[in-house]
Amino acid sequence: MIKTLGILTSGGDAPGMNPAIRAVVRTARNHGARTIGFANGFDGIFDEEIIELNDGFVTSNMDRGGTILQSSRCKRFYHEEKRTEAFHRLREMDVSGLIVIGGDGSLHGARALHQLGLPTIGIPGSIDNDIWGTEMCIGVDTAANTILSMVDRIKDTARSHRRCFLIEVMGRNSGYLGLISAISCGAEVAVIPEFRPNYARILERMNKRFAQTRNNSTIILSEGVCHTEEFVSRIGELENSDKLCREIRKTVLGHVQRGGSPSHFDRVLASRMGELAAIAILQGESGSMTALRKGRISILDLDHTLGRKKHPAMDMLRLARNLNIDFGDPVEV
Amino acid sequence: MIKTLGILTSGGDAPGMNPAIRAVVRTARNHGARTIGFANGFDGIFDEEIIELNDGFVTSNMDRGGTILQSSRCKRFYHEEKRTEAFHRLREMDVSGLIVIGGDGSLHGARALHQLGLPTIGIPGSIDNDIWGTEMCIGVDTAANTILSMVDRIKDTARSHRRCFLIEVMGRNSGYLGLISAISCGAEVAVIPEFRPNYARILERMNKRFAQTRNNSTIILSEGVCHTEEFVSRIGELENSDKLCREIRKTVLGHVQRGGSPSHFDRVLASRMGELAAIAILQGESGSMTALRKGRISILDLDHTLGRKKHPAMDMLRLARNLNIDFGDPVEV
Amino acid sequence: MIKTLGILTSGGDAPGMNPAIRAVVRTARNHGARTIGFANGFDGIFDEEIIELNDGFVTSNMDRGGTILQSSRCKRFYHEEKRTEAFHRLREMDVSGLIVIGGDGSLHGARALHQLGLPTIGIPGSIDNDIWGTEMCIGVDTAANTILSMVDRIKDTARSHRRCFLIEVMGRNSGYLGLISAISCGAEVAVIPEFRPNYARILERMNKRFAQTRNNSTIILSEGVCHTEEFVSRIGELENSDKLCREIRKTVLGHVQRGGSPSHFDRVLASRMGELAAIAILQGESGSMTALRKGRISILDLDHTLGRKKHPAMDMLRLARNLNIDFGDPVEV
Amino acid sequence: MIKTLGILTSGGDAPGMNPAIRAVVRTARNHGARTIGFANGFDGIFDEEIIELNDGFVTSNMDRGGTILQSSRCKRFYHEEKRTEAFHRLREMDVSGLIVIGGDGSLHGARALHQLGLPTIGIPGSIDNDIWGTEMCIGVDTAANTILSMVDRIKDTARSHRRCFLIEVMGRNSGYLGLISAISCGAEVAVIPEFRPNYARILERMNKRFAQTRNNSTIILSEGVCHTEEFVSRIGELENSDKLCREIRKTVLGHVQRGGSPSHFDRVLASRMGELAAIAILQGESGSMTALRKGRISILDLDHTLGRKKHPAMDMLRLARNLNIDFGDPVEV
Repeated sequence: MIKTLGILTSGGDAPGMNPAIRAVVRTARNHGARTIGFANGFDGIFDEEIIELNDGFVTSNMDRGGTILQSSRCKRFYHEEKRTEAFHRLREMDVSGLIVIGGDGSLHGARALHQLGLPTIGIPGSIDNDIWGTEMCIGVDTAANTILSMVDRIKDTARSHRRCFLIEVMGRNSGYLGLISAISCGAEVAVIPEFRPNYARILERMNKRFAQTRNNSTIILSEGVCHTEEFVSRIGELENSDKLCREIRKTVLGHVQRGGSPSHFDRVLASRMGELAAIAILQGESGSMTALRKGRISILDLDHTLGRKKHPAMDMLRLARNLNIDFGDPVEV
Repeated sequence: MIKTLGILTSGGDAPGMNPAIRAVVRTARNHGARTIGFANGFDGIFDEEIIELNDGFVTSNMDRGGTILQSSRCKRFYHEEKRTEAFHRLREMDVSGLIVIGGDGSLHGARALHQLGLPTIGIPGSIDNDIWGTEMCIGVDTAANTILSMVDRIKDTARSHRRCFLIEVMGRNSGYLGLISAISCGAEVAVIPEFRPNYARILERMNKRFAQTRNNSTIILSEGVCHTEEFVSRIGELENSDKLCREIRKTVLGHVQRGGSPSHFDRVLASRMGELAAIAILQGESGSMTALRKGRISILDLDHTLGRKKHPAMDMLRLARNLNIDFGDPVEV
Repeated sequence: MIKTLGILTSGGDAPGMNPAIRAVVRTARNHGARTIGFANGFDGIFDEEIIELNDGFVTSNMDRGGTILQSSRCKRFYHEEKRTEAFHRLREMDVSGLIVIGGDGSLHGARALHQLGLPTIGIPGSIDNDIWGTEMCIGVDTAANTILSMVDRIKDTARSHRRCFLIEVMGRNSGYLGLISAISCGAEVAVIPEFRPNYARILERMNKRFAQTRNNSTIILSEGVCHTEEFVSRIGELENSDKLCREIRKTVLGHVQRGGSPSHFDRVLASRMGELAAIAILQGESGSMTALRKGRISILDLDHTLGRKKHPAMDMLRLARNLNIDFGDPVEV
Repeated sequence: MIKTLGILTSGGDAPGMNPAIRAVVRTARNHGARTIGFANGFDGIFDEEIIELNDGFVTSNMDRGGTILQSSRCKRFYHEEKRTEAFHRLREMDVSGLIVIGGDGSLHGARALHQLGLPTIGIPGSIDNDIWGTEMCIGVDTAANTILSMVDRIKDTARSHRRCFLIEVMGRNSGYLGLISAISCGAEVAVIPEFRPNYARILERMNKRFAQTRNNSTIILSEGVCHTEEFVSRIGELENSDKLCREIRKTVLGHVQRGGSPSHFDRVLASRMGELAAIAILQGESGSMTALRKGRISILDLDHTLGRKKHPAMDMLRLARNLNIDFGDPVEV
């Protein structure tokens, strides 16, 4: 039986982490467990920065972006002897179970503690949506809405000036945000790491648009492909690219995408995942993570999911094609 | 083969209808069909209010709430002879297929035209999420986000005054918005039509909160249960209800819930449904509707879905229970 | 010299109170004074609910609506002997100056303490903008932006349905929010307490609009005039009002208007007023309030301002007239 | 008498231009003049791209950012013979008065046409707020609110990670947005072109903050000073800058600042300026611009205002100082 359940958030923060913490706390306390938080990710275990998690504190912050537990990329956790030390410290503190909310690196950390013998469950939180096995991670929907509201603003200016906007969105290893926001923002082109951009075709398309009356246009670029400067210089190497290079405006949305009050979808997803993680760990589960699969929250083995590469969904690619969004050519294998 | 595809929006408007129209238009035109819109719902067929739907028009309005085709509840369509008239008019206008975006009544209208022999497919748009067979309707996510942002604002005031807010949300026949927004807003109580409110328990709970330091609280009331006045007077009939009745503040969120720029989720859901509806009708489907099932867009027979009552999902009820949200007692059958 | 400066927020909360508190605290501390807050308005003096105000606490909450000090309408303060008691308690607590942030009633309370001998300065916070002597109160701009964003949403639905929306906004004694939001929302009619509504002219105008293609319309109603039901029944008494009465939709914006993260304008206004209030009281001022006058922050005697009725600015009435907004006829005296 | 009044928007677009157009159109039409728009700034005169401006068109777009008339920096207008050509074309089109909405360059263009003999009045629209003589330009308030909402989001992440964010805002020649948003966002440092940044003091301050518990911090950098890279490298040249250089995160807010639905303040300011511009030109005014001065809209001679440099208001600098915002040292003359 787990008497004291620890919770921490690790890696890049994502909106929805706070409602996830709240759901873990409420569910675990309803089932008789005490809940404590470690501040600052895995570092909080070493530094024994402990936050007593009661109902009032977790609830009054559920509309806040980021994480009330703070987060970090804990370098100490890359070393086996440090992970073992963390395991022993948790034991000494009578922590008999741990919930880790975070991205790929954090889930690896969760598995390591599980392998050492501490019941541990992960909850995938990452605005990039780059965790294999779950349709959505906590934070993705809020980030997509933030991108949307910013691109809608930029389009006001684009419409007023007959320009082409090149907008860099997050996604180091994953084109998810790039492709999905091209669909929701009405962009003409999505440049994503999973496909090879066809610069000549992009240029041809933009030039065609400049010849029309309604001629502003939007290109979404995932940060994982290249910088905006490089994109423009690749276009600039082609013939007839003067007009486009002159009228293109570059914007990097940056850190804004990570913040903001979590959206309805993220609060509910986070609550569902937090609830199930708490139930599962209290019932003896370990070494697993929560996942949204076919509309339901499930439990997946971390051994099964970690290290696998998530690919864009086929129906999303088909949708993009039918909406005339150019997302490049398949990469030859 | 469908040469001219008609599109109309009917019944209450929902954010996301415009991206749905855009997806139908783009997909159908990519497959060689002409697309026209009827203004003002089924009325537009009788009044021959036709809007040529080209790419520019549908795209530049995709960030707008409501519907660029306008909508209405068409009373003429309740009469069989009028529906037959509409069918013949569509034939005369060489419209060989129709996409109807709307709620339950609109989908019944779509089925009627199908039964008369016109290929027709429905797309469920309704902020109440009361259509059986689809996990989400177009507009629900935006409405839930709007409710969220308004309740977050109200909680600023509640926190400043140690008060209890009673907030009426939409949902005439369905407690979906009520229950789901209680989860995302952090409400203490959700009063929804599918369950029987336990007034004594609600009062006891609120009185307990007033005795605490952090003592503001929120009750979400679905419009389908009763008016806010009636709720308060039912509470007032109980003993020890003076404090609560004095400190309760009533707010009806009203029509605001229906508007607003569609959220990312709704734009993508609408695009997916619009795309599949266009593909399906061009390939010979009829008498069916698009549905989100287990995370994918599918096609369901209207005969199978219409007339069935959607119930709250069991995992959502369990979640609400674990989050300490009181949503009443089961209705005895 | 003031060693300990007290701060409280009283009456209805208004967005911007938190940045005002922050500015008082920073400025006063920079000038060597200690700052403490009383929770819950004047009640906090009697109940000795004291909150130590340090830099971190006041800064991390400046993006929150409402007030971190909480607020109330303190009934005890209506009695002279209680006010005297409060004065003595403040003396005992070594509070040698007090800043009161709130509306008309709160400013009266501030003057009472000044008259008893305690240096006291008021800061006008009221979303109704009903304090004579200052062009703007804290909270008005945020409330107006909230109204705007809600009316913009409602207009999505109005546009989709060819309807008339009747929207009740706050303002019990003042038509400021009603008139100014009619200007910024593009409403056709503003019904405000300072003028007499001409129901026949409103009906004529609406009927003319229903005869046009673009025929949705918006009427803004200040809560101080009458309820929405009464407005509609007054219209219903006229001839040819069937169409309008059938197509009119009523919405009461309610408590949402009071909340929300303070706007840029309100944060700056609140900061300016808080700063000047702190400087002034530390330099010996008392019995006065901060005011925005001709674009600058000034200090006005409370004796000069309290009890005076603020009238709509002539240039705003002229503007409304030139924009074809019907705001009724002058009230005969 | 002016029978046909032309309107154009020129230079960088600013939110609020559409409500300004609406106010000009409504006021001028109420006074018997016809109103036409030139598309795309002064270019629209040469290209004779004319848009008939009726009530419905201008009203239904007043919630849109950007400008429905589109805008451009017209290079032809730099040449005297081209300006003379424009003057003659306007005459031929029977345009007997012109309203120009835009920034410094656009107002120079307006004066040129006035000097040639065409009655012309300017309306200052520029999110930088860099026009001498008016306290606010159209678009500034919306831009400041956009900056606010983005910095609030970034602070979620900053708070979760104990980091320092360096945020570049617009303002090529003016630190207005930089200083004012540092006040409303609660930044520690504002680096603006009118003052000389004290890098050593900034570093010392940041290092002090890193030593505290609540240690995230924000630096606002006006684009007119330098790029974010240069700022960081200047800091990096100092001793003990390793920690800061490692934890600093750079964000360029970019084009997003220019877009968005105009705020309440901007809609009202634009309406007031548009109304007065229309009244003034119909009454024979020319060669002037509208200005917000001491809370009222006035008319200023362009000869008096153009070419003068606007300085930060003394009370804003004092406020920043009292709020502990470091904005650098005076530039020696």
